[in-house]
Amino acid sequence: MLADDDLGGQRDDPSTPTNRKYVDAFAAIDSDPNPLLAVAEDDRNLVGCLQISFIPGLSRLGMWRGRIESVRIASPYRGKGLGRTMFEWAIDECRNYGCGLVQLTTDKSRADAHQFYETLGFTAGHEGLKLIL
Amino acid sequence: MLADDDLGGQRDDPSTPTNRKYVDAFAAIDSDPNPLLAVAEDDRNLVGCLQISFIPGLSRLGMWRGRIESVRIASPYRGKGLGRTMFEWAIDECRNYGCGLVQLTTDKSRADAHQFYETLGFTAGHEGLKLIL
Repeated sequence: MLADDDLGGQRDDPSTPTNRKYVDAFAAIDSDPNPLLAVAEDDRNLVGCLQISFIPGLSRLGMWRGRIESVRIASPYRGKGLGRTMFEWAIDECRNYGCGLVQLTTDKSRADAHQFYETLGFTAGHEGLKLIL
Repeated sequence: MLADDDLGGQRDDPSTPTNRKYVDAFAAIDSDPNPLLAVAEDDRNLVGCLQISFIPGLSRLGMWRGRIESVRIASPYRGKGLGRTMFEWAIDECRNYGCGLVQLTTDKSRADAHQFYETLGFTAGHEGLKLIL
C-alpha cells in the first residue's frame, strides 16, 4: 500500500518476502510506546494504514503533540470517505492521548489533499522543510 | 528561554518555581529514548536549547526521520552564529542516529528563518498543517 502511491511508488518496495528494512522498522515502532501504527480492515482485507507519533515537548507548557503520517488507502477504497473516517479516528486518538494539537505535513504537489485537510479543521500556517541526509 | 520569543511569549510560562507541566513534560521526554533535549552552554550559562525527535516509520523503506523543534537562543546570543552551530550539530546527531532525512516546520510568520534553513540545505516542499484540540 505504501508503494501504491504517486510519491511512494518511487521509494518503497512492495516485493515479497518483505524487505528486511520494513521488518526492522516495524520492530522499532512496536517497541516504542509513542508511535502508533493502525490499519483499517474491510472483511479482513487491509484497506488503509496510518501512523500517529505522539511527541512530548517542553514548548506550550509541556504540550504533547500528535503527528499523523504515512496515511495510505488501498486504491479501490479511495474517494469513498475512508480517509476522512481514518483521520477523524486518528484525531480522536490524539485527543484521548492528551495531545494539545495535531500536526501533519503534506507534499505541496498533493494539491487536493490540502483542501481535504482544511475540511477537517487543519490550518496551513507552517512551511514544512526537509533535508535529505 | 521558551517564553523569550515572539510566538512563545504568548504561550509559555517563565515563572519560578517551574510550572509543574514542564516538569511532567521533561520526565516524559527523559523516559523515552527517541526524543533528545539538548542545551548549549557558554561558561555555564544556558544560551540555547533544542529538541530532536527521532521517529521510526515504515515509509521510504523503513526510514528513520529526525525532527528538529523548539529551537531557542537566549536573546544576547542571537545573530552570532550559535543557531547555525546548533543546527549543524543536530543534523549530525540525526545522521549518527541513522536517520535518512531531517524535518522541521517553521511558522510562516518567521520570514527570516526560511532563508536561514535554506542555507543549511533544507528545501520547503511541504505545507505544515495544524489542528488545535
